[in-house]
Amino acid sequence: MPSISRKGQQMPESPIRKLVPYAEKAKKSGIKVIHLNIGQPDIKTPEIALQAVKNNTLEVLEYSRTEGTDEYRTKLAAYYKKRDISVTASDIIVTTGGSEALSFAMGSIADAGDEIIIPEPFYANYNGFATASGLKVIPVVSSIEQNFGLPPVSEFEKLIGPKTRAILICNPGNPTGYLYTVEEIQKLASLAKEHDLFLVADEVYREFAYDGKQHYSILQEPGLEKHAIVVDSVSKRYSMCGARIGCLVSRNPEIVQTALKFAQARLSPPTFAQIASEAALDTPQSYFDAVITEYVSRRDLLIAELEKIDQVVVARPQGAFYCMAELPIEDADHFAQWLLEHFQKDGETVMVAPAAGFYATEGLGKNQIRIAYVLEKPVLKRAVAILGEALKTYPGA
Amino acid sequence: MPSISRKGQQMPESPIRKLVPYAEKAKKSGIKVIHLNIGQPDIKTPEIALQAVKNNTLEVLEYSRTEGTDEYRTKLAAYYKKRDISVTASDIIVTTGGSEALSFAMGSIADAGDEIIIPEPFYANYNGFATASGLKVIPVVSSIEQNFGLPPVSEFEKLIGPKTRAILICNPGNPTGYLYTVEEIQKLASLAKEHDLFLVADEVYREFAYDGKQHYSILQEPGLEKHAIVVDSVSKRYSMCGARIGCLVSRNPEIVQTALKFAQARLSPPTFAQIASEAALDTPQSYFDAVITEYVSRRDLLIAELEKIDQVVVARPQGAFYCMAELPIEDADHFAQWLLEHFQKDGETVMVAPAAGFYATEGLGKNQIRIAYVLEKPVLKRAVAILGEALKTYPGA
Repeated sequence: MPSISRKGQQMPESPIRKLVPYAEKAKKSGIKVIHLNIGQPDIKTPEIALQAVKNNTLEVLEYSRTEGTDEYRTKLAAYYKKRDISVTASDIIVTTGGSEALSFAMGSIADAGDEIIIPEPFYANYNGFATASGLKVIPVVSSIEQNFGLPPVSEFEKLIGPKTRAILICNPGNPTGYLYTVEEIQKLASLAKEHDLFLVADEVYREFAYDGKQHYSILQEPGLEKHAIVVDSVSKRYSMCGARIGCLVSRNPEIVQTALKFAQARLSPPTFAQIASEAALDTPQSYFDAVITEYVSRRDLLIAELEKIDQVVVARPQGAFYCMAELPIEDADHFAQWLLEHFQKDGETVMVAPAAGFYATEGLGKNQIRIAYVLEKPVLKRAVAILGEALKTYPGA
Repeated sequence: MPSISRKGQQMPESPIRKLVPYAEKAKKSGIKVIHLNIGQPDIKTPEIALQAVKNNTLEVLEYSRTEGTDEYRTKLAAYYKKRDISVTASDIIVTTGGSEALSFAMGSIADAGDEIIIPEPFYANYNGFATASGLKVIPVVSSIEQNFGLPPVSEFEKLIGPKTRAILICNPGNPTGYLYTVEEIQKLASLAKEHDLFLVADEVYREFAYDGKQHYSILQEPGLEKHAIVVDSVSKRYSMCGARIGCLVSRNPEIVQTALKFAQARLSPPTFAQIASEAALDTPQSYFDAVITEYVSRRDLLIAELEKIDQVVVARPQGAFYCMAELPIEDADHFAQWLLEHFQKDGETVMVAPAAGFYATEGLGKNQIRIAYVLEKPVLKRAVAILGEALKTYPGA
């Protein structure tokens, strides 16, 4: 019998996946599970995007251009321009989700055995794409005490070696909610230029910047044209995760041409979803204002409630819709499973994402969890109350 | 300045891509270009599939399950059962096009440096996926004289070594239109079992089998459960290439579990397109009957017309909608470009796919072209007339 590839054996499982059977069991036994673990917003998709798909008059659902339709890329360029990001349609390749943009970026800049430096905790699927491409993730630790801000440049410099090809950041961060300052982006830009590295930024949460702070894109940084590669997506911006439309943006034509070769192999991004994504660009600002007001009030409630619990340390996210919390426990994996197997309050329990899966360094984040505040405030409040009660009785506390 | 990866440099360009600017130039100068080069069917997408998308009532366009919705996979299993392929929903992972299924299959069964044997000529994008995964394609030559039937088993055996992980076939074939017989599939099955290899079959043209011949899937072959991996897609079946929905099917649970880990990294296949694909499964048989009647009559016309041209050798496809033809020329790349740059008949010219891009062996197929008969008969007839005229005046003949 033929055997699975080594790469296939090494591919990481989603850190939440092993909890799913316990959640299903809890549901079957009549317990309501509040999902704090997923980044699927409950916000409605803009009507304008959904309507565009309903109104389509296609008779043959054809391939689009490999790099995405001209109309969509032209409108996307205008979207970026409004955000002080000066790019043209030819700097953009439309991808199947931000995921594919990341995969094209990794393939274009690094070979098997090469290294990519990522501040941890980071989005767990970066591990999957790195493993699939044979790349080695080199983590640099950011700490909850520093609100997950950029680690000192000296920490990066210690890790840069002959195999280092890029630094990858997520801004604002999943799972940290941290929004990098202009000064931090400039430090990273200097590092990239000095050491001939690419700087890849996952900016899919660009719109979700709070407290009057502005998102600063790596594409806004002068002199970084050859180094900067942005991974973007409509998933969170318009609450259309199921569209699977993202894009890769770079002002380095060699990067775009190379990524295009990877894109050619898979022919084209999905047509219906491009129709929705193009229409979504006309979403009025009022939609975002309302969404951001909602997320800020959820965040404020979530943090206030979490801070009432004894010995819980909470980072203060300024973007995205995630929050990292340190709990007075030893092992969040065990705690998360226990919550589903052995705990309930008034017929409800919660499912959280144990944070160890967001760290590459073994042993880090074991007492942390990630909470996605994509639920309505009354539900969030109940969820935190459940967590508080649970921590009182949890035997591993 | 940081440099592109070696892999990125090695990624093949689409063999047709370099002709595109010449086609655009011809169009700009007022010449009508008949595209014989693309596999985008002109057949209408089933109304039932398009309507399902228009009738969707989603308010939040959410992620689907990573492996595809339960409803769709369950209906897919029933589709296979009707075709004497006995699989369950849990043997299926819904993918973003057949492309992604192939990419997951390669990642699950082979590591960088491993080898995969493919009868040539083969679908050019196999090269792209192999390069992206660091795999080496080992071609085994099938010839136009043998109608591109399976090469002798001894030819495969010569090529099987310690790094060989799989044999990949396309059945019916793109670009050959060849439909493997039951005996040929059984020979491949024996080979796979004897040498502990996976047998991967791209069966996206399953429905397109002509002349009363039946498609025989590798999943129908008894005893091949651990070895067989099918790559499938709705693109051609329902003329919905732009949906980007395919699937990987295997009765080897280790393969499915491993492919699922690759799938988890990219979260989920597109939601709208899954709605369309699920609905498309209810397409009445009359749709396929009409489509197949149409393709057969196009093929018959195409072959009859091509055979009228002096010194043109044509394979007789029994499936899919491609036809390989050998022309009395030295270099089809040059001829294809010349057709766009320097030839016209009554204001029209044709764009063909030079076949060298479908061969891995340097120098093979240089005098062959692939013709996709996805155009209406009068257009096909004009296109062949143009080819015939062109061959009379082409200086490289």
